[in-house]
Amino acid sequence: MEHQEQHFTGSALLRDIVIGMSDGLTVPFALAAGLSGAVKDVNLIVVAGLAEIAAGSIAMGLGGYLAGKTEVDHYESELRREYAEIETVPDREREEVETFFAELGLSRELQVKAAAELIADKDRWADFMMKYELGLEKPDARRATKSALNIGVSYIIGGLIPLIPYFFVNEGLEGLKISAAVTIACLFVFGYAKSRITGLEPLRGGLRVAVIGTIAAGCAFGIARLIGG
Amino acid sequence: MEHQEQHFTGSALLRDIVIGMSDGLTVPFALAAGLSGAVKDVNLIVVAGLAEIAAGSIAMGLGGYLAGKTEVDHYESELRREYAEIETVPDREREEVETFFAELGLSRELQVKAAAELIADKDRWADFMMKYELGLEKPDARRATKSALNIGVSYIIGGLIPLIPYFFVNEGLEGLKISAAVTIACLFVFGYAKSRITGLEPLRGGLRVAVIGTIAAGCAFGIARLIGG
Repeated sequence: MEHQEQHFTGSALLRDIVIGMSDGLTVPFALAAGLSGAVKDVNLIVVAGLAEIAAGSIAMGLGGYLAGKTEVDHYESELRREYAEIETVPDREREEVETFFAELGLSRELQVKAAAELIADKDRWADFMMKYELGLEKPDARRATKSALNIGVSYIIGGLIPLIPYFFVNEGLEGLKISAAVTIACLFVFGYAKSRITGLEPLRGGLRVAVIGTIAAGCAFGIARLIGG
Repeated sequence: MEHQEQHFTGSALLRDIVIGMSDGLTVPFALAAGLSGAVKDVNLIVVAGLAEIAAGSIAMGLGGYLAGKTEVDHYESELRREYAEIETVPDREREEVETFFAELGLSRELQVKAAAELIADKDRWADFMMKYELGLEKPDARRATKSALNIGVSYIIGGLIPLIPYFFVNEGLEGLKISAAVTIACLFVFGYAKSRITGLEPLRGGLRVAVIGTIAAGCAFGIARLIGG
């Protein structure tokens, strides 16, 4: 068996959509379910649901977009710092490279030789320090921000799924029955797909997302009924 | 200047609290603000806000808890697979180690020597493949699940901050004024702290979180007023 089999072959766009939708389904579903336990007016549930979708998608999409931009700045400032350290304290930086090879289990002789070869090229040296000392990968700014926006839009679509049934009924509890059936099925499907994409066990992942959504909806329902009912 | 200066010295618990609270502030604040634009009854805003907090904290806390457990299983199954591959296709696995050293810029001679030393110990070999081929760090199961629960609880506390002003007023818009003032200040403080912890620029991070929360609340308000007002 190859490792590759575990990796999802779909596009990055598909990945964003599945992540955004499986997250977007959960909270609007639970909120609408909760309000169904306390509120007679279905319009109110729809308004609250749409307000949540707006808030959640902006927090997720815009938040991810701006975080992506900040991450790029952070990477670049750290990279400048590494270049400066290579100039000012080269011995200490070389020792850090040797320590890396020591931790891989290489003999002292090979540590020194490998470090000497690696640091012969200053760009390679700086990249190495970024990746293995600081654990920072060069962030792909355009990809990160596009991905955040895809996830935000998918959150909106995912959030509308549990809400749409309430458009067509006159009572909250009536809408809740249809909403719960549709949403729990979707949660399973998107949890399944999300797990496949992130390399986890799909069946368990699908069940997990469905169970979390159901528990969240149940608790929101209980709390709303206790206070507002 | 040392890199360490950039790292936050607070405990892991403090980190969880700040992350959970800065996330928890955003959506409940925006939801309550949105409903203030459409709903006269303050109790309803409180009920919807509490339902959201329940749903969001469960999705975040329970979701993180179960994801942590799944990640451990995933790591262990991949590790078993690596051990099996070391037995069945040792030449291919050794070549992968050599490729890693080649990508660091080492000469062919050192690639072979370093790989030979590294694979002398099979546990070290398997750990190496996990970390550098698959990019998987050994997950700390207890830490991950505890952290998820801390974040979930902090989400509840963070979510209550924008909601509490509504307990003491008779009209939504009245509550919104106090809620917005308190929450935007808190969003800045927690965004600032969150950025310090995650190694980003604090001032910009604080502003970012405050701006996202404000835009999310503004949009939720506009949508709710448009549909429900």
